[in-house]
Amino acid sequence: MPQKVRIALDAMGGDVGASVVIPGAAASLNRHPDTEFLLFGDQALIEPQLAKHPAMKAASRVVHTDVAVGMDDKPSQALRRGRRTSSMWLAIDAVKKGEVGVAISAGNTGALVAMARFCLRMLPGIDRPALAALWPTMRGDSVVLDLGATIGGDAHHLIALALMGSAMASVLLDLERPTVGLLNIGVEEMKGHEEIREAAASLRAMSLPQLEYIGFIEGDGIAKGAADVIVTEGFCGNIALKAAEGTARQLAEFLRDAMSRTWRSRLGYLFAKAAFRALREKMDPNKSNGSVLLGLNGIVVKSHGGTDAEGFAYAVDVGYEMVHYDLLTKINQMLNRDGGALAQAQTAQEAVS
Amino acid sequence: MPQKVRIALDAMGGDVGASVVIPGAAASLNRHPDTEFLLFGDQALIEPQLAKHPAMKAASRVVHTDVAVGMDDKPSQALRRGRRTSSMWLAIDAVKKGEVGVAISAGNTGALVAMARFCLRMLPGIDRPALAALWPTMRGDSVVLDLGATIGGDAHHLIALALMGSAMASVLLDLERPTVGLLNIGVEEMKGHEEIREAAASLRAMSLPQLEYIGFIEGDGIAKGAADVIVTEGFCGNIALKAAEGTARQLAEFLRDAMSRTWRSRLGYLFAKAAFRALREKMDPNKSNGSVLLGLNGIVVKSHGGTDAEGFAYAVDVGYEMVHYDLLTKINQMLNRDGGALAQAQTAQEAVS
Repeated sequence: MPQKVRIALDAMGGDVGASVVIPGAAASLNRHPDTEFLLFGDQALIEPQLAKHPAMKAASRVVHTDVAVGMDDKPSQALRRGRRTSSMWLAIDAVKKGEVGVAISAGNTGALVAMARFCLRMLPGIDRPALAALWPTMRGDSVVLDLGATIGGDAHHLIALALMGSAMASVLLDLERPTVGLLNIGVEEMKGHEEIREAAASLRAMSLPQLEYIGFIEGDGIAKGAADVIVTEGFCGNIALKAAEGTARQLAEFLRDAMSRTWRSRLGYLFAKAAFRALREKMDPNKSNGSVLLGLNGIVVKSHGGTDAEGFAYAVDVGYEMVHYDLLTKINQMLNRDGGALAQAQTAQEAVS
Repeated sequence: MPQKVRIALDAMGGDVGASVVIPGAAASLNRHPDTEFLLFGDQALIEPQLAKHPAMKAASRVVHTDVAVGMDDKPSQALRRGRRTSSMWLAIDAVKKGEVGVAISAGNTGALVAMARFCLRMLPGIDRPALAALWPTMRGDSVVLDLGATIGGDAHHLIALALMGSAMASVLLDLERPTVGLLNIGVEEMKGHEEIREAAASLRAMSLPQLEYIGFIEGDGIAKGAADVIVTEGFCGNIALKAAEGTARQLAEFLRDAMSRTWRSRLGYLFAKAAFRALREKMDPNKSNGSVLLGLNGIVVKSHGGTDAEGFAYAVDVGYEMVHYDLLTKINQMLNRDGGALAQAQTAQEAVS
């Protein structure tokens, strides 16, 4: 019998907590019946939810704690108040102890990154964690990272992002040698910050078997799906992600407006209702919920804080796949393959500088 | 009789050159008959175009040059080969000489920024130029800058952007005290790069009469129109702009797909055709064409290189308004008002650091 996929949930995370987390996990369990959950949080809030979802109850074990990290807590505050006691910490710690394959939280990003880093520690050769997610493009999905785990970063950091993102793309998109591009303000070699040009030269010089570096990609290249993996430091990655989300919402609103303005357009809307529904589903931001915190000795998935149960279920799906396809081993292999791609990066960098 | 608005055009700029520039300018002239043009470029290419647009011909004077900056020329190349001789340089130089109020080019951004900087020089207190444009939001238009004239920048640079952007918003959007936000990856005070936090503290401490600083704005705040003026350094600004443009094109394509899939949706499309046309016009990227290069002793407008005549006409409209409402004087006033807002910025910065 194959092993079950074990997932730890921070049942207190997010704007709402247990009443989103548990129905969400139940929906994912429905899709992946071979899942087991460890739930961390306030038993008094968790049990009533489990009572409504018997299959989920049967697949879960609850570990009570009444300490929860607040959505506005600073990372330092969260660590001071919630280390070893909060639902967020305990979920991450279950990964460290090997009790589960992944921890999932809709809690605040800064606290989650800080706690995961403190508890799990970084992988050898990786300086800082990164948030990666699937971005729906015209050509299918691309992995984009870092979406805001940390800000800034040197060439070595960007190369680490390229390697980890490629591991994730090979797992989630089933690609043997994903294409990788560096986000930049132009495609010409001399464009952008020095660290980006340096990373580009190194990636080209390394010519790795596990990824195909294809050059710089401009902001509109993300929507085009110009590469399977698109790499940028976390400040710009976060701005790009949210600028795109904002634009999508803006257009949806403009479209709604336009379709309700005249009797002809309202009639047209009625006829095309199924098409609009399909479009809405295709663009549903819930479906892109769940970014993966990479670079740690263990996998942590971050859900949007403001998501609903349906959205949280997608984050749980992401966590499930990461464990099922063993992302962590894949990343480790990628980092250490051929005498260590990152060590090689160091050499290539020195060679070009 | 009021003075005419005089505009210099780089007739060789852009992917196409004269056959876009001249019909485009003619369309703008039609909207603003009090315009006069100085056209720089190859007479043999310009004259046949003017022959097709008699009103434009009557309002234009042609200055021949057969040197043109290539779309792929590096800035240093462009300066070496095109200084004092290229159509781009001559158009900018006409601003310097006071022959025109603005120069407009669809030529390559890097070369245009370098030439404008070299020819016109920076305004006192401004270190580097910035590209600013109107961004259509859910709430109307916002001024966003820097969209990629230069990359990076300290707190002083960000404050200069806030001041210049406010001057532009007050001219183009007719606002007495525009709201200003700094683009960041969170709204909390401790978020983001140090220079952003420093700029925020200074802008708050200065409490200027000509702008209302309202805090940090996340990427999705642009589409929401969360502030009249949204400030960021040029790398992120360029990525955000193009990520949004890419998303808009992606959604338009998804919508087209959805509407052509079934007979019901095709019928719906026919009924709602006018609504779709209105939406398309509203989202027409041509209408946002024309970003303004700020911070120089003179105004230069940059058009997309790949635009058509209709799009170029909008860039000419932007140039027209900048001269008509005297943006340059407005910026100078803003920079020097109350003993110089930028000098004040220096003091406020020292006070908070």
